[in-house]
Amino acid sequence: MSSGYQAPLADMSFQLFDVFQVDRFWAEQSTLAEVVDQDTAKAILEEAAKITEDCIAPQAMNADEQGVSVSAGVVSTPSHYKENYRLLCEGGWTGLTGAPEYGGIGMPKTLASLYDEMMCSADIAFSLYPGLTSGACVALLQHADERTKATYLPKLYSGEWSGTMCLTESHAGSDLGIMRTKAEPQHGGSYRITGEKIFITAGEHDLTDNIIHLVLAKLPDAPAGSRGISLFLVPKYKVNSDGSLGERNTLICSSVEHKMGIHGSATCVMNFDGAEGYLVGEPHRGLACMFTMMNYERLAMGSQGIGAAERAFQNALTYAKERTQGRVNTKDANKADPIIGHPDVQRMLLQIASLNEAGRALGIMVGHFLDLAKFAGDAKAQAKANLLTPVTKAFMTDRGFDACVMAQQVFGGHGYIWEWGMEQLVRDVRIAQIYEGTNGIQAADFMLRKVAPDQGAVLFDLLDQLLSEAGAEFKVELTAIVEQLKTASAEMFRQALSQPTLLSWSACDYLDLVGYLLYAFMWDKMITALDSTKHSEDFISAKKAKASFYFHRVLPKVQALLLQLKPLPVQLESPTF
Amino acid sequence: MSSGYQAPLADMSFQLFDVFQVDRFWAEQSTLAEVVDQDTAKAILEEAAKITEDCIAPQAMNADEQGVSVSAGVVSTPSHYKENYRLLCEGGWTGLTGAPEYGGIGMPKTLASLYDEMMCSADIAFSLYPGLTSGACVALLQHADERTKATYLPKLYSGEWSGTMCLTESHAGSDLGIMRTKAEPQHGGSYRITGEKIFITAGEHDLTDNIIHLVLAKLPDAPAGSRGISLFLVPKYKVNSDGSLGERNTLICSSVEHKMGIHGSATCVMNFDGAEGYLVGEPHRGLACMFTMMNYERLAMGSQGIGAAERAFQNALTYAKERTQGRVNTKDANKADPIIGHPDVQRMLLQIASLNEAGRALGIMVGHFLDLAKFAGDAKAQAKANLLTPVTKAFMTDRGFDACVMAQQVFGGHGYIWEWGMEQLVRDVRIAQIYEGTNGIQAADFMLRKVAPDQGAVLFDLLDQLLSEAGAEFKVELTAIVEQLKTASAEMFRQALSQPTLLSWSACDYLDLVGYLLYAFMWDKMITALDSTKHSEDFISAKKAKASFYFHRVLPKVQALLLQLKPLPVQLESPTF
Repeated sequence: MSSGYQAPLADMSFQLFDVFQVDRFWAEQSTLAEVVDQDTAKAILEEAAKITEDCIAPQAMNADEQGVSVSAGVVSTPSHYKENYRLLCEGGWTGLTGAPEYGGIGMPKTLASLYDEMMCSADIAFSLYPGLTSGACVALLQHADERTKATYLPKLYSGEWSGTMCLTESHAGSDLGIMRTKAEPQHGGSYRITGEKIFITAGEHDLTDNIIHLVLAKLPDAPAGSRGISLFLVPKYKVNSDGSLGERNTLICSSVEHKMGIHGSATCVMNFDGAEGYLVGEPHRGLACMFTMMNYERLAMGSQGIGAAERAFQNALTYAKERTQGRVNTKDANKADPIIGHPDVQRMLLQIASLNEAGRALGIMVGHFLDLAKFAGDAKAQAKANLLTPVTKAFMTDRGFDACVMAQQVFGGHGYIWEWGMEQLVRDVRIAQIYEGTNGIQAADFMLRKVAPDQGAVLFDLLDQLLSEAGAEFKVELTAIVEQLKTASAEMFRQALSQPTLLSWSACDYLDLVGYLLYAFMWDKMITALDSTKHSEDFISAKKAKASFYFHRVLPKVQALLLQLKPLPVQLESPTF
Repeated sequence: MSSGYQAPLADMSFQLFDVFQVDRFWAEQSTLAEVVDQDTAKAILEEAAKITEDCIAPQAMNADEQGVSVSAGVVSTPSHYKENYRLLCEGGWTGLTGAPEYGGIGMPKTLASLYDEMMCSADIAFSLYPGLTSGACVALLQHADERTKATYLPKLYSGEWSGTMCLTESHAGSDLGIMRTKAEPQHGGSYRITGEKIFITAGEHDLTDNIIHLVLAKLPDAPAGSRGISLFLVPKYKVNSDGSLGERNTLICSSVEHKMGIHGSATCVMNFDGAEGYLVGEPHRGLACMFTMMNYERLAMGSQGIGAAERAFQNALTYAKERTQGRVNTKDANKADPIIGHPDVQRMLLQIASLNEAGRALGIMVGHFLDLAKFAGDAKAQAKANLLTPVTKAFMTDRGFDACVMAQQVFGGHGYIWEWGMEQLVRDVRIAQIYEGTNGIQAADFMLRKVAPDQGAVLFDLLDQLLSEAGAEFKVELTAIVEQLKTASAEMFRQALSQPTLLSWSACDYLDLVGYLLYAFMWDKMITALDSTKHSEDFISAKKAKASFYFHRVLPKVQALLLQLKPLPVQLESPTF
């Protein structure tokens, strides 16, 4: 690999405290004020930087090469994962956002999203083991009964146990309504779970003493389709009443997938053979419970895109400064200058950085909406977070993939060779566009469930608010684009009355359009927050260059996307292939 | 893998004979008329389809899994490569475009480019072994002396021997002027070649009795930089005067690269240790000789993009018809419809197909320009081929990669799993954007050497010609975009007088802009050529749907690219990172 990873702490602090001033909100909320302030947060980020830079990132290529293996149901993870996982547990990282009443640390989402980014820069595959656990905890905290929470959450927050989400079956991917896994009621209130689940991240591994599966299954009296799905907690080892581990449950990992990337992550086929499970939440309401977890994960997916792209950028920048090819300043035909002198290399680096830093900002903004909802009960903020969840998942991972591919391109032929680590970043980040609901499904969710039902009301409220806060430099241009978007949206909704599939056809382009516009607002926010008394000249000029690049060379894409929203010609309604 | 590969023979015939009517030109040229007409060409394409569909394509995943290995300088290719290579030689495919006076078959480039596409659909890695040989033959035919041609070309055309191009050194990628490999004159007119070359495709393997390396090196009296490079023929085994193999030359493969994809292709580090070599062409004129080969390969690169994307499309289409998820028509909540019913899946399939078929057309058009130049001495056609060579290399491989990624997305999670073959296509096609000069270098070549020197004269001539041939349906829109391009180009050239780096900054966007516009012209040509007496209703409606999709949902990208050509703000002239 071309260089070590260095967490972008300066930009993280700038965004948290200068751009979004989240510490003001923290100080106002007693539950937050007790655990975090600006100094604490900076210390936490520095500790996160240490563990990701020193312990996790240096081993990511090793993990890619080793991969995982399974033998008789026992999965072995890459050799150093155990030690790094132990370090995470010791440092309390596994319970970072957990509820304090069950042993969690209760940190705000804004801070946690930056920790997520660092973990994903360091090693996406490794990050999934604690990542899935966090998601499971969110679902349990919200839907499980008190006894279940008291039994499981402390062990999950401490990292002693880990969690999974078992949704997919081989014939049923995102279409959960047609799943076949059965749950049969037993005496004593438990259930026997029988069925096969695939693509189960961290379904089996050697990092924890127990694995707590959250499994979707159908009760005997289940209504057809997605309204007949219930959620069950199914532990690998049953838990005795004193909290100690009991007998092994009847479930097993029958194989692990051979994947394009994230080789260190165990993607398991899980067989539940009458395994003992416990209902979480109401019968037939499992999908709603699972969506709590899915939404949490979807936001974390955005961090995967930014995390991989940040590391790709750092590697490309270092390489561009060191690699000499061609002559920019030197006159000696036998010598060469660093390739960073070439405009096309500068273009690629600026494009990557302008996407990454805007994406980081968007993640913090959405995290802050979630914090406003969670800690201050702000329903409007919750609505905005719901609106933007599919955008952060899809747009940040699509742009993260683009950025990794572009950074790989900076390396020329060396980018294609394993030794430099760039092709791994491309392979690893690719999954983020697919799992937790493909980006096409995110776009459909955004268009059909979040935007169309209120004809864009929440979206336009948010954009108007962002406009009202916009600085002078970009306000005119942003106002014009918001107006274009409103006009095009109204026309699209009108056309959709007579062309019902138009919204589905346009969903991906519409999500991209909103994404590029939001990134522009993020650049506006960053430029507005620059302060010559607090920031160095270099920091300021770098930010201005990236913002300028974004407005001149990236944002014009919205003009193409606006044109692409027009109604479809008739023959596209049912195309022949 | 989801399905077998089927060569798109109907579209290939349509494009060759209805769209470009290349058979009329063949009939006019006596050298071509002797070897090919429409029936012969169709028979050749059918034979090419058989060998690629039945023998090569079914083994591509096996080759990816096996990869290549090296031990003591001996490279082993995947187990079935020998047999398939033998079939290619027996069928005469290795000499398809070769000069008949040395045993080649003398086929036109338009036909060969479709054969190239099929080979790349079947297995890019395998295609490189005969592919590099073809390139080496082109360079030898043009620059070697008669004795060299008589000695080497027949064995290369027959496939008994293979060829390489040895340019890159570890410190010198595309910047060949700084290379260090030395050539020392010997008594008897030969040279001793000493140096290390990296990234040598097919540098060593077990498919042929001999390997003929074309090596760039510097003579002792070489001027500095790229004007001091000479080209040498360096055989693995020296060739006796009777054409039989003599002693082993002092060159060896010291290692093979561990790459993202094309695992079946041996990418070698080659050490030349005073190896005997023979000057090809004039001293210090090696770069010009090598560019003959590079230009040939660059055009073939476009076929790699289309080839991989065509196979990705076929797989995605089959999967979309078979995979059931969600309900489109069915009312039963426990059942699901094929995902091809979803508008977003149709959108992805149409986008891929609209790019692939336009790319195939562009490849044929440029191939036809090359045939006009080669067989009829048409200098204007040669100028157009020179102009478009970087566009076919960069744009067709960039869009080919996009298409493969999008086709992988159609598969959801299964696209990320090795078994379905989609992630391999993405990994394999990625190299085409990098080797033979990165796409950024292609864009610089296009802008700085092909367009700017004559202020776009050849380009605009070509576009005016295409406009004059345009059908009624798209003529108004195409005329408007050509005018926009001319205006924007004139403004860009004017601005570049005071902002010298502007052309380099804008090169990639400008190439993309021209590429999207050319693809639109290709769709115009295809629609104009549809004839209800010759083509089935399904064929016609599919073409119309793809064209319509292209104009409504892809071509608007040119509007964004036009905006992106504007001059840069000052701070981007020397950005801080």
